Amino acid sequence: MKESLDFIYKQQKELSVIGGIGDLLGWDQMTYMPPRGADDRSEQTALISKMSHEKIISDEFWKHIQILSENIDDLSEKDKIVVKRLKKDVEKSRKVPSEFVERFAKITTLAYQSWEKARTKNDFKIFAVDLEKIIELEKEYCGYINFPGPRYDCLLDDYEEGMTVEKLRIEFTYLKKGIIEILDKIKSSKIFEKQQEIKFKLNEEKQRFLCNIVIEKMKLPNDRSRLDVSTHPFTTGMGDDDVRITTSYNRPNPLFSFFSTIHEAGHALYELGMPKGEYKDTVISDSPSSGLHESQSRFWENMIGRSKEFWKYFYPVFKKTAPAHFKDITFNSWYNIVNQVRPSLIRIEADELTYCLHVILRFEIEIGLMDEKISVNELSQIWNEKMDEMLGVVPKNDVEGVLQDMHWSGGGIGYFPTYAIGTIYSAQIFRKISQDNKNLLSEIRNAEFENILDWLRKNIHEYGCLMDADDIIKKACGQGLNSKVFVDYLKDKYYEIYQI
Amino acid sequence: MKESLDFIYKQQKELSVIGGIGDLLGWDQMTYMPPRGADDRSEQTALISKMSHEKIISDEFWKHIQILSENIDDLSEKDKIVVKRLKKDVEKSRKVPSEFVERFAKITTLAYQSWEKARTKNDFKIFAVDLEKIIELEKEYCGYINFPGPRYDCLLDDYEEGMTVEKLRIEFTYLKKGIIEILDKIKSSKIFEKQQEIKFKLNEEKQRFLCNIVIEKMKLPNDRSRLDVSTHPFTTGMGDDDVRITTSYNRPNPLFSFFSTIHEAGHALYELGMPKGEYKDTVISDSPSSGLHESQSRFWENMIGRSKEFWKYFYPVFKKTAPAHFKDITFNSWYNIVNQVRPSLIRIEADELTYCLHVILRFEIEIGLMDEKISVNELSQIWNEKMDEMLGVVPKNDVEGVLQDMHWSGGGIGYFPTYAIGTIYSAQIFRKISQDNKNLLSEIRNAEFENILDWLRKNIHEYGCLMDADDIIKKACGQGLNSKVFVDYLKDKYYEIYQI
Repeated sequence: MKESLDFIYKQQKELSVIGGIGDLLGWDQMTYMPPRGADDRSEQTALISKMSHEKIISDEFWKHIQILSENIDDLSEKDKIVVKRLKKDVEKSRKVPSEFVERFAKITTLAYQSWEKARTKNDFKIFAVDLEKIIELEKEYCGYINFPGPRYDCLLDDYEEGMTVEKLRIEFTYLKKGIIEILDKIKSSKIFEKQQEIKFKLNEEKQRFLCNIVIEKMKLPNDRSRLDVSTHPFTTGMGDDDVRITTSYNRPNPLFSFFSTIHEAGHALYELGMPKGEYKDTVISDSPSSGLHESQSRFWENMIGRSKEFWKYFYPVFKKTAPAHFKDITFNSWYNIVNQVRPSLIRIEADELTYCLHVILRFEIEIGLMDEKISVNELSQIWNEKMDEMLGVVPKNDVEGVLQDMHWSGGGIGYFPTYAIGTIYSAQIFRKISQDNKNLLSEIRNAEFENILDWLRKNIHEYGCLMDADDIIKKACGQGLNSKVFVDYLKDKYYEIYQI
Repeated sequence: MKESLDFIYKQQKELSVIGGIGDLLGWDQMTYMPPRGADDRSEQTALISKMSHEKIISDEFWKHIQILSENIDDLSEKDKIVVKRLKKDVEKSRKVPSEFVERFAKITTLAYQSWEKARTKNDFKIFAVDLEKIIELEKEYCGYINFPGPRYDCLLDDYEEGMTVEKLRIEFTYLKKGIIEILDKIKSSKIFEKQQEIKFKLNEEKQRFLCNIVIEKMKLPNDRSRLDVSTHPFTTGMGDDDVRITTSYNRPNPLFSFFSTIHEAGHALYELGMPKGEYKDTVISDSPSSGLHESQSRFWENMIGRSKEFWKYFYPVFKKTAPAHFKDITFNSWYNIVNQVRPSLIRIEADELTYCLHVILRFEIEIGLMDEKISVNELSQIWNEKMDEMLGVVPKNDVEGVLQDMHWSGGGIGYFPTYAIGTIYSAQIFRKISQDNKNLLSEIRNAEFENILDWLRKNIHEYGCLMDADDIIKKACGQGLNSKVFVDYLKDKYYEIYQI
């Protein structure tokens, strides 16, 4: 027992060290690596992935996990929790043959290239061949895991343990209906009719200045984090005290960098808040789900960052930073600009209201692909029909449509729903914090976020994956995933803005 | 045979991949890592070092090297060369017990801390205890390697294969005498009497601008390299096509960033010029010695960067970049400022003429430490006496004296001489290029460095470690290490500047 315990803790520690190395390789590739470093980098990354995978599925590791599982009653509470978590994770990993993992990695590498090429040539067919292969691989994967119920449950489980198509369908149906109802009312409003596209510019230096102010206010510690630049913003934690975020300053919308920085800082605060103490360097010191992770970024980005109170503090800051742009913009019109609803084609540029419709569209399509009710060759057409049905806009071409996201090229089927799950959770969290803290609005107005961060640490972050995501939310907010809370929030907010 | 060949090439490839990962970990630590990332980073670095060491000394690797060595006559020319090189390297590494390697790593980590503390408190005694231990470890190391001749030969060999105390003493004696003779003449000159300390400022943006111009002119490819900032400038190659340099913009001398960038770019061009083709991913694709590596940086920094012709191009560039500073400085006075001789206490701030005296001082002390003719407790006094004897200046305290370099805290005894070796080689290379290319001076005047780089590639870089350093220099320049060439160069240059 002692030997087995020593082994599993040492193994987890090593996996955590190896994971950190892999994260640095990835971060550097996206931020600073000279372009031609890519070939060597891919070999470095492959070596680290292989090492990590071999350690996870090693027979010795499994042997010790089994010994401990058979004697689970003799373990301390902490050891019990760690062993149960490990058994679940390792058992799942061991179901998948290494040969499959390699094959999957090869095909997704090629698929990423064909996806890029398809975008350049604006020709979905170039990507379709590889996407077919990926769908087949995903089915093969589900075969190894051998879950009861629909295949999509098995894919969902990789990102959102315990979540099922059945549960999600109920929430997403309600959400879709709710958003479309609000959207229809907005579209018939006078304000919508008159509203114009946001057109103003902020140079990189000013954008950078504003991003640095907001992460300072959010208490992202600069001795444990940093902000860099990459094409697509992301967060990566390469150590307990080293979690980095990125943004991009050259997007058409100059607010992109500001909101994406808030979003990524939300992820980073979560990573930095993971349980240390007795669970340091164990599987417990990790997020239980992508949806819960996203709830943290969405919370800061939308619930805080797009709120009227937040802009009471930041509108003057923006005005001072770019006086020329703001001289004709009142606080109210600025708040409306920040929250302008405008059904559009690209998910990552969508407004707060319509964003989840983009996600639900992908969810419906992915289920169809896995159930064999949708075939790859009709994807483009189905995509466009659904866009028209839900958002009332139709892509002129596949680059604006089915080719816009890279996720499928990497085999990430089942991931998209976590964006909407996180968004729903974020509204539930916000409602609960509002109930718990009567000074919340005045704190936000003064950009004083200590109590908010404190609440998140105690109720979300410090659980790591001691429970699954929905149970953490249940304990924190009184109920699990509930899209009604989010729809109510949207109604309150957007009916006011559009005077409905 | 086939199996053994496959194994050793695969092993070299993996060592090269692991090495690149370790280099990225180090680079990031010195450039971008948030301060508190240090703990996790040290574990990541330790893991990678251990992996690398275990691979090098693995019995299987050794077995295959032995099989191939026993059948060396049946191998192709290329395989012969690789196997011989590997045998030499691996045999040496295997002589040292892993237990010793770990002990050495631990003590040097502690010694670095006590060195830093000793500097803060300006108290050599704090460092002396650990330095004693390091000297003992170095002796123990020499015992494992078991070289004939003095212990220092064994330490030298790690950085400068084939170099011996006997050979170096001849060159360094000549060099010391030559420099002191020139220095004495300069000190009695009128120009020296009148010269004033360089006092001008360039903000970071301007320094950065100038650094970027010079690396562009040197053809450091920006798709295979990049320039960042760190406390101490360095070069690191983390892939065949990813070699990065750093500089520092906040030193008292605003020219520091410019010259250190040229210096590091010289190292980087060498790394980028290593043999690819059939020797890619083999031990051959590496520098044979630290001295030869330093010859490349010193060549660009001094022979090119401090030459009159170089400033014909760059003086106007500087003048245009900082017109206010240059309005009263003529070309000639600027050239003299850049080459001002000023005996001083700190090696890394020394001028071109006196630099090697700092190195020779350390060489003499290190030999004394290894021969047990100098003890650690008298180091500070001996240091100061030697400074007075060679340079005519005496440190006011140990921070300006024996505590100035970090090298000994890391166990790097035997490394300092390579700085002077590289400097001597650089003068030999410059003389040979001058003979081979009659247009050299006009090319430098126009900052056209293609032919120079081409010469270096063909005569130095592309050999990798197919020969040892001195043989490469012999083949390229007609003779091995020869300090007379460097002393002649110094005389020509400085007698002109000081009108002697």
